[in-house]
Amino acid sequence: MIILHHCMSARSFRPLWMLEEIGLPYELKMLPFPPRVLARAFLDTNPLGTVPAFIDGTSRMTESAAICQYLAARHSPGALDVAVHEPDFASYLNYLHFGEATLTFPQTLVLRYTHFEPPERRQPQVAADYTKWFLARLRTLAPLLADHEFLCAGRFTAADVSVGYALLLADHLGLAERFEPSVGAYWERLQQREGYRRTLAAQKAAAEAQGVSIVAAQDAR
Amino acid sequence: MIILHHCMSARSFRPLWMLEEIGLPYELKMLPFPPRVLARAFLDTNPLGTVPAFIDGTSRMTESAAICQYLAARHSPGALDVAVHEPDFASYLNYLHFGEATLTFPQTLVLRYTHFEPPERRQPQVAADYTKWFLARLRTLAPLLADHEFLCAGRFTAADVSVGYALLLADHLGLAERFEPSVGAYWERLQQREGYRRTLAAQKAAAEAQGVSIVAAQDAR
Repeated sequence: MIILHHCMSARSFRPLWMLEEIGLPYELKMLPFPPRVLARAFLDTNPLGTVPAFIDGTSRMTESAAICQYLAARHSPGALDVAVHEPDFASYLNYLHFGEATLTFPQTLVLRYTHFEPPERRQPQVAADYTKWFLARLRTLAPLLADHEFLCAGRFTAADVSVGYALLLADHLGLAERFEPSVGAYWERLQQREGYRRTLAAQKAAAEAQGVSIVAAQDAR
Repeated sequence: MIILHHCMSARSFRPLWMLEEIGLPYELKMLPFPPRVLARAFLDTNPLGTVPAFIDGTSRMTESAAICQYLAARHSPGALDVAVHEPDFASYLNYLHFGEATLTFPQTLVLRYTHFEPPERRQPQVAADYTKWFLARLRTLAPLLADHEFLCAGRFTAADVSVGYALLLADHLGLAERFEPSVGAYWERLQQREGYRRTLAAQKAAAEAQGVSIVAAQDAR
């Protein structure tokens, strides 16, 4: 049985979304945010103290976009995965990484220096620098999304989950109104998916059942 | 013919290292750093303005760790690649992403707010926050590297190139003396590789031939 350690709407939303899209059985273990502080015993499971922590037999993973690719390759070949021989293999890998390294990390700076740090350590300049940085890079997707339903391979793939989570986080941060129209329309399409809706429902049900707050860290202002 | 756009010792060092390890023919196009400012015509090649920009036939990529995986899968199966059916496939994907998203991005903050920004915009607190952040995450590799020559699969793979570049950057930033002993020894092993030495020589030769400074951006203090 796959085990996924998750905090509400954190990066671990990506593998949860993949599990729901594929329809795999899994056990979802909810943690308060940040687990490093509020659930010290979790450090025995993941010394990094971060979510996701993902366990599938002897496989253990902590990088959310990597888990998406793993689940696609092992459990969804020809569907959520893009194979080495397909023409869009390069784009697929690129967007998997782009969603995290280029579109998500900058937003964690905004979050840290506007929400999580105590007032005397907040850094409005850094938050502004990386909001601009994020929006400039996101804008480069607009021409592609103006005439493609998904990022690559003519179908919904793990790459859409990787980038889609970055859009969810941006939406929580109040940046969705600054998306280019084609990017905003893509984000609307992703939210209409049955798999996405099941993911929202699954994390809410698990949080309630396990006594964890359903408020996402980034909404706890 | 593969084309790689590169700046001295920037993230594009990763795909260059892969090309040298595999022994593929390629054309290396050197750019001054930052290309977004100093080589405006490059924006026609890559609207992000970042390196690497990598072209292989109709495939175009910009994420350095993704290019490593692409080159391994397409051009080095069974060697620098770890296949889906191998037991360490999950670890391989995880370290490919970990090298960039977890170990490199925090260092770019240190670089930005201690080197690249004008003095009035420098942020010593942010540089200190993300130096600590980087070292804490790097430390989690120490137990593994105490009794493994490489990160996964019992051999040198693209995952070592991804993480290895993060160590190169940390070394440039003066952080190598703070590596745990097993991490420092791993970094020494990587630097002894013929493929690594050929990579250093290739970027230096190309920079000299193309009239680009051989000083890495992070060393231009």
